[in-house]
Amino acid sequence: MSFEGVFPYLVSPLNQSGEVRGDVIEALVERLITAGVHGLAPLGSTGEFAYLDGRQRLAVAKSVIKASRGRVPVIPGVASTSTADAVSQTRAMVEAGADGILAILEAYFPIDEDGVEAYFTAIAEAAEGLPVVLYTNPNFQRSDLTLPVIERLSHFENIRYIKDASSNTGRLLSIMERTKGRLEVFAASAHIPTCVMMIGGKGWMAGPACIVPEQSIALYEAAKAGDWGRAMELQRPLWRINELFARHSLAACIKAALELQGFEVGDPVAPQKPLGAAARDEVASALRDLGAL
Amino acid sequence: MSFEGVFPYLVSPLNQSGEVRGDVIEALVERLITAGVHGLAPLGSTGEFAYLDGRQRLAVAKSVIKASRGRVPVIPGVASTSTADAVSQTRAMVEAGADGILAILEAYFPIDEDGVEAYFTAIAEAAEGLPVVLYTNPNFQRSDLTLPVIERLSHFENIRYIKDASSNTGRLLSIMERTKGRLEVFAASAHIPTCVMMIGGKGWMAGPACIVPEQSIALYEAAKAGDWGRAMELQRPLWRINELFARHSLAACIKAALELQGFEVGDPVAPQKPLGAAARDEVASALRDLGAL
Amino acid sequence: MSFEGVFPYLVSPLNQSGEVRGDVIEALVERLITAGVHGLAPLGSTGEFAYLDGRQRLAVAKSVIKASRGRVPVIPGVASTSTADAVSQTRAMVEAGADGILAILEAYFPIDEDGVEAYFTAIAEAAEGLPVVLYTNPNFQRSDLTLPVIERLSHFENIRYIKDASSNTGRLLSIMERTKGRLEVFAASAHIPTCVMMIGGKGWMAGPACIVPEQSIALYEAAKAGDWGRAMELQRPLWRINELFARHSLAACIKAALELQGFEVGDPVAPQKPLGAAARDEVASALRDLGAL
Amino acid sequence: MSFEGVFPYLVSPLNQSGEVRGDVIEALVERLITAGVHGLAPLGSTGEFAYLDGRQRLAVAKSVIKASRGRVPVIPGVASTSTADAVSQTRAMVEAGADGILAILEAYFPIDEDGVEAYFTAIAEAAEGLPVVLYTNPNFQRSDLTLPVIERLSHFENIRYIKDASSNTGRLLSIMERTKGRLEVFAASAHIPTCVMMIGGKGWMAGPACIVPEQSIALYEAAKAGDWGRAMELQRPLWRINELFARHSLAACIKAALELQGFEVGDPVAPQKPLGAAARDEVASALRDLGAL
Repeated sequence: MSFEGVFPYLVSPLNQSGEVRGDVIEALVERLITAGVHGLAPLGSTGEFAYLDGRQRLAVAKSVIKASRGRVPVIPGVASTSTADAVSQTRAMVEAGADGILAILEAYFPIDEDGVEAYFTAIAEAAEGLPVVLYTNPNFQRSDLTLPVIERLSHFENIRYIKDASSNTGRLLSIMERTKGRLEVFAASAHIPTCVMMIGGKGWMAGPACIVPEQSIALYEAAKAGDWGRAMELQRPLWRINELFARHSLAACIKAALELQGFEVGDPVAPQKPLGAAARDEVASALRDLGAL
Repeated sequence: MSFEGVFPYLVSPLNQSGEVRGDVIEALVERLITAGVHGLAPLGSTGEFAYLDGRQRLAVAKSVIKASRGRVPVIPGVASTSTADAVSQTRAMVEAGADGILAILEAYFPIDEDGVEAYFTAIAEAAEGLPVVLYTNPNFQRSDLTLPVIERLSHFENIRYIKDASSNTGRLLSIMERTKGRLEVFAASAHIPTCVMMIGGKGWMAGPACIVPEQSIALYEAAKAGDWGRAMELQRPLWRINELFARHSLAACIKAALELQGFEVGDPVAPQKPLGAAARDEVASALRDLGAL
Repeated sequence: MSFEGVFPYLVSPLNQSGEVRGDVIEALVERLITAGVHGLAPLGSTGEFAYLDGRQRLAVAKSVIKASRGRVPVIPGVASTSTADAVSQTRAMVEAGADGILAILEAYFPIDEDGVEAYFTAIAEAAEGLPVVLYTNPNFQRSDLTLPVIERLSHFENIRYIKDASSNTGRLLSIMERTKGRLEVFAASAHIPTCVMMIGGKGWMAGPACIVPEQSIALYEAAKAGDWGRAMELQRPLWRINELFARHSLAACIKAALELQGFEVGDPVAPQKPLGAAARDEVASALRDLGAL
Repeated sequence: MSFEGVFPYLVSPLNQSGEVRGDVIEALVERLITAGVHGLAPLGSTGEFAYLDGRQRLAVAKSVIKASRGRVPVIPGVASTSTADAVSQTRAMVEAGADGILAILEAYFPIDEDGVEAYFTAIAEAAEGLPVVLYTNPNFQRSDLTLPVIERLSHFENIRYIKDASSNTGRLLSIMERTKGRLEVFAASAHIPTCVMMIGGKGWMAGPACIVPEQSIALYEAAKAGDWGRAMELQRPLWRINELFARHSLAACIKAALELQGFEVGDPVAPQKPLGAAARDEVASALRDLGAL
């Protein structure tokens, strides 16, 4: 299986008592697949993995897989400070029917390069041949993936993609040049998708695609067709959404947008705060300008 | 109940399959109480809380409480990104017989001051009147406790202590001046205990006390008696242990030291690495010089 | 006058006693203009402005202006912690015949947004109508230019360009969207020039153009013609030079490369070190692969 | 000559056109020597060295030396990014009659440990046997002095003191333990002077001593006499001044305080801002409470 295109990061809707709302997930998945997204990525940063326990995470992944009904690949996030726990999460995701694993390293004490490599390799082994997407986010993970470690990991058979959530687009080109033919690159919401496509990216895994899926796919198709003028025309107004994401907390921002669009996804997990009124207005206005509200 | 004196941070010994080793905890607790420590603090940074799931954490706390047999107070750590989860951990600790709660905020997305306050207040409410120790560590927690929030929290009835793990001793004096009579201050291993005692601290909660308990207590008693000359005489050689902790990873360092002293505490949780041979020799030599090996 | 195209950052060659070597500057300027560069930018980071006193800086600017003989615009850097000193530097540069000013804020204590705005406005006033290029480098300047300040400054008549030396390409798009028609954007060596051109940039001001000017101009022309396929073909091998710059110290790297190309530019100012043998080999090999040695 | 005691950091008073006001310096020096300070330190951070050119710096140093009339030692700061410039500044200070040199490394590009060592060694050689005080401030200097470099420098004959402006008091103890008998330690305003004296410090070099000299000397004498109870009694209210310095910009804060005390020191160099009205009131109230207004 080969991943390519627009993969929205899904939020994790919970009810008051912390139970995962499968009905809301189902509605959201339906809406996104109808819009034409190429895959679904639950349990990324936007999916608040850092705020959910193992039981909640599995419930989210299962709901997405069930609602997707095999129409598009589902790549849930696996994140832990501990190798053993990451392996056990991976096994559960494989068993639940995931099509790939988005592998995230959480760290408390700093980990050296060998430790980082061992962590991701253990996940890849546990994934039983499913494609693994490396997730690197220097803003949120204390132990980042360096270029040499990425290069070493790219030789592992089923480690086949990387999503870099830094804002450093040049780093993506450096990764591509070093891992050509082994690792494909996806953009994150901190990068300009059109730029990443032009330098050789395969698509993007990002929160904004969850609230403006049609617009994201139009942009993807223009870029894929090499129509860069059209791509930039679509890119400019879309970038405003990414700016909002960078300014406010990701999960708060996208949950607010989805509520505005009629999905009862609820608030971000406390002590995170829901978006304030002014920020909510900004989001509403940006969505309206894009025809997404 | 009033806390004061030397509270070692305990490690969390696990076997190969990740089960908590109650026998090792029991032996360690016995050794520390015999040495005269004033309390026990499982599940701090040194206790690798960030690498254990809820079940493992509770097992560690229960083992310590059981082994302590009420001889000294036990103050386990409660740490989460989520308020609801922290509250549920707190309730479990209270039910297990804890004498107080060490409250730690983990963060992924940044939390504002009101959110930080709400998180700690929710733990204090769930602690059912047990004393709460605020834990602040700007190096490891993404959302730090600012002075204004500490001041507000100090007015909450059972929030009565703070342990600051920054290396900024002046900050401790600022906290003391702002919360006089409401919050007592404990040193962490990044501070010089003698200095913290002199400016008005009540003792220290720190990893080194786990491996040099007699020496720590001798220092505490000299400081408590106002014999500052004697305290500094004891402090100078002891500081070398704190330097080792700062240079190497806390959990790796103290687990290595305890292994050298005959406690089968095992390695830090992977992908953390055990101490290398050279660092292990440094630790051994420091312990030997202090008569602790 | 309107700036557009490839503006190499020049190094500052000094002899043993710290005197500026006008002969070396002359040779370098001749070589770059012959290669077709569109302008010259002495006294940027690469020009080691931070290591030169006022007299040396002025000597560098005068040598470049003299050697250029009006064939291409010369935009020297003006950098200071003090407004009064920046104004006096600007006046000297205007009098020496500069065609524009690259304005850099050095900071020791943090400066608030109004202070930052006042600093750049004072330079723009002193520039007597010459175009001013804002220089922003969050890695090296302690007080960065925020988006709101950039927006305010863009309304000042002769503040007409910005060069952002962060590695955040999305930030460039945000700047463009906010200052359309008032501020033109140049890439720095931390950005991929092709990407910046595609999103609407006017060219680049960067150190690498000093050592691979023909290759830089070929890339610029492909991008300008909208031939993005060809641009990326040229971009990929060129990116290796930017990677070297990011890995090693800018001034050391480019001075080593120019020495290899036969320009006696000397070592970076002590206590900076010249490039070591291994790094020098890397630079030589990269230049050779590009046909620049 | 041996340095010990309270060395206030002096501000640099300038008139509108940037000329150093020798008359104001004279009045301030007279007031401080009368109050009993043990030495004078012009051209530290508080002295805005980073905002003055070589001519202004020398004028400040000469004014202080002249006004001091040999009654107490004067240790002016020497700061540069360039070794050659630092050496030339040092020679000028020696010739002007300085009693020691406070050596500060400014950095733009990062400098490795050997470069840092070479920089300070070059200053020490140029000081012609005068005692050199190493100045380390991880918040403002990009290349910090590591413990190994400090240890190496401590073997250089006339490098005899260190002033560490981090807030990490434990680091001071680590320095003392490593350089015993070779390097004496002074506190900075980020440390609690009483603590630094207790662990073996020789005194402090700090801005606050400029505005509360009598109170600083009383504290020093209590600490020196080993009367730690009295020292802490004096320390607690004095700490409020250090807190103000940490909250506001150093130079702005102390210039405001001196203006309130009747010294026409003027504003900090633009684009720095003078203290706002609210902060000025805080300073006035703190001074009044200490009997210093």
